[in-house]
Amino acid sequence: MSNDLYRFTATEALKRFEDGSLKVSEYATSLLDHIDRHQPTVQAFEYIDRSQVLQQARALDDVPKDKRGPLHGVAIAVKDVIYTKGMPTQHNSPIYKDDQPEVDAASVMMLRAAGALILGKTRTTEFAATVKGPATTNPHDSSRTPGGSSSGSGAAVADFQAPVALGTQTGGSTIRPGSFNGVYAMKPTWASISREGQKVYSLILDTLGLYARSIDDLKLLAEVFGLKDDQPPRALTDGVKGMKFALLRTMVWDQAGLGTRNAMERGAELLKSHGAEVKEIGFPADFDRLPDWHSCILKSDGRTAFRPEYMVAKNKLDRSLVEHVEEAHGYTRKTYLEAFDGVSALRPKWDAIAQEYDAVIVPSVPDEAPGGIESTGSAVFNSMWTALHVPVINIPGFQGEHGMPIGLSLVAPRYHDQALLEVAKVVGEIWESEGGWKSKL
Amino acid sequence: MSNDLYRFTATEALKRFEDGSLKVSEYATSLLDHIDRHQPTVQAFEYIDRSQVLQQARALDDVPKDKRGPLHGVAIAVKDVIYTKGMPTQHNSPIYKDDQPEVDAASVMMLRAAGALILGKTRTTEFAATVKGPATTNPHDSSRTPGGSSSGSGAAVADFQAPVALGTQTGGSTIRPGSFNGVYAMKPTWASISREGQKVYSLILDTLGLYARSIDDLKLLAEVFGLKDDQPPRALTDGVKGMKFALLRTMVWDQAGLGTRNAMERGAELLKSHGAEVKEIGFPADFDRLPDWHSCILKSDGRTAFRPEYMVAKNKLDRSLVEHVEEAHGYTRKTYLEAFDGVSALRPKWDAIAQEYDAVIVPSVPDEAPGGIESTGSAVFNSMWTALHVPVINIPGFQGEHGMPIGLSLVAPRYHDQALLEVAKVVGEIWESEGGWKSKL
Repeated sequence: MSNDLYRFTATEALKRFEDGSLKVSEYATSLLDHIDRHQPTVQAFEYIDRSQVLQQARALDDVPKDKRGPLHGVAIAVKDVIYTKGMPTQHNSPIYKDDQPEVDAASVMMLRAAGALILGKTRTTEFAATVKGPATTNPHDSSRTPGGSSSGSGAAVADFQAPVALGTQTGGSTIRPGSFNGVYAMKPTWASISREGQKVYSLILDTLGLYARSIDDLKLLAEVFGLKDDQPPRALTDGVKGMKFALLRTMVWDQAGLGTRNAMERGAELLKSHGAEVKEIGFPADFDRLPDWHSCILKSDGRTAFRPEYMVAKNKLDRSLVEHVEEAHGYTRKTYLEAFDGVSALRPKWDAIAQEYDAVIVPSVPDEAPGGIESTGSAVFNSMWTALHVPVINIPGFQGEHGMPIGLSLVAPRYHDQALLEVAKVVGEIWESEGGWKSKL
Repeated sequence: MSNDLYRFTATEALKRFEDGSLKVSEYATSLLDHIDRHQPTVQAFEYIDRSQVLQQARALDDVPKDKRGPLHGVAIAVKDVIYTKGMPTQHNSPIYKDDQPEVDAASVMMLRAAGALILGKTRTTEFAATVKGPATTNPHDSSRTPGGSSSGSGAAVADFQAPVALGTQTGGSTIRPGSFNGVYAMKPTWASISREGQKVYSLILDTLGLYARSIDDLKLLAEVFGLKDDQPPRALTDGVKGMKFALLRTMVWDQAGLGTRNAMERGAELLKSHGAEVKEIGFPADFDRLPDWHSCILKSDGRTAFRPEYMVAKNKLDRSLVEHVEEAHGYTRKTYLEAFDGVSALRPKWDAIAQEYDAVIVPSVPDEAPGGIESTGSAVFNSMWTALHVPVINIPGFQGEHGMPIGLSLVAPRYHDQALLEVAKVVGEIWESEGGWKSKL
């Protein structure tokens, strides 16, 4: 039994810390042993130091009960583009090899203040800005990618190496690994959690992302990070019964493979069979340029973001990022502003559409995780939501032709993060139990 | 003569480093001696270490001529909300007393790569987010404020303690000290220079700011930071002759004092007398809510920005920032989004208005620097431009009732930074020589 401590969700572990039946150091030891066994294959961590973790754990055990924070002892893995005191932050870039800025990102500062145990740093694609996979493999099938750019965070949570983890998303870097690894992943409303201390790719797109194996755990993190809707979310005591969902295939539906096509169909059917209404909707025509606009903003902002590294060591920068800086994309400032202002004008329009429903169901990915770890896959179904700044939660439950997990995303209007978490909880209960996919880990 | 080396602009010093008539270490020594004499009164620096500066200077002198960067030996002072390796970054906050994140902000990384000499850290209001002045005094009259929040950077450049300096602006933190200290100050287009490693107050408002005593020096910095318009700026060989300016008093003109009223009148007259056309314009009615929207965005974003510090040490946070976090302002997310989307919709409208002119002339401040250093003054004439993301340059040349400097700002459409610098150069030549104010420093 004690060998299985690492399998607890954050909520389950917290309960045991609270009732005194589990010490943080015991729990940490179980996690560390499990990580040691799996790291050679999964390679989720870029940096983890056993003695440093145990030292934190013992210090937490010494905190008197009345001084403990809401995340007391909760272990969390941090994507390696987010600053952490006492640990290197290397961005999977040779320019930052062994670099250790002695500063905590805002997110990490809040986590520590809440009593969390910072486990270590998880692997990322270079600066969370390329699709070239790091060494991380998909824990469900090591011949496949775990997705990216938050490769290590998605894999670590799926593989029980951490109950929760931080990722980031500029295109699809949080939601895609969520789907590929079969875990819950949340991209909150843009700028609703401080992104201070998280590597910049595009200011208007970059968003902190959260991973967990349960919605309750995401809610724990959301609470600590201060996510708060205007209206307190209503308690959903009757499942999805009477709820109104929209199903939106999006303008890039032609890129959906069989796995995602089946998942969308099955996901809608299940909700209907539990008493929900599911209405198919389409984007208004003025949303058509959204994917192009995202791409223009991303690449143009990449010029500004990577200019410092370009000036210091152009030869150590991935070719795609050099091209951003050198404006190989050819976008003018005028085109950039059209994209920037165009997306800005769509945001309130989307909110107005989405607020007619409890949530909008959309694809998370084109299909299950592709073979090979060279490429982390496509963000085509995610980038529009990143640009629109809306909260998105990937819910696992479905599977592809090769038995790999596939998730679907729920989307809401901006600053409806708490409400979306409640909806995701009841939807997740259905999809996870009846969607057809079960983790074998 | 050698005592006066510290008086060189960056461009003047560069020329002498290039022709071999001046060593960086000689220049640095002159600056350091001057700073030593004035620091007790002006208190521009929060941190400066003589031996560290001289070590940098000697290392730069050792760089072979063909390996020198475009800012070789140019001394620059950095506002203490911007990370610098080897120096503390304290944000004028007791929470960060003696804190030294070992990381360079993107701006500092580019400056070092270009061969600049990082002098030290300049005083700021707490997190560049309050109007409570630090110990810095106005070098033209020590009983008056240098403005804020970039208090030390504005004062240092005016007082010849540094030829150029970095500031930041979220409301009026770059332009206001520019006007109060009688120097050139530039707020470039939002996000046109990476803000990585610069304390976050509001993502959508925060902008890196630049100080200098000449437009040529601002151009040097702009070049290194990669500011680039779609069209290369045309060379202005005939002064302002034939140019078209707009004069815009703005919706807060009732807050302009005598000094600014006179400056606006005199500034327009001088340009006309040199052959320019100056047309008075007003904002369209839909710009009326801009000041309120800025305030709503600022305070709401402050909740997110300072939540980490609030969780760690609420009692060490300025009351106004505690109020941001506790939402004493009472803004809902709905109101916030109205402000956010409202400002977004105005940006292209402003660009369309401004592109009819070579530049739009607007007030920089309500009046000359007020007495006392407790308050750094009002950002009422700046915050609208920060929200609109447009480039703004303060040009000195006028004076108030007490002989203190007053500047006026030139504004352009977004991503017309290079063009605005060219216009500011010819306008500055006129206003500086005929506006009525001359620095006695």
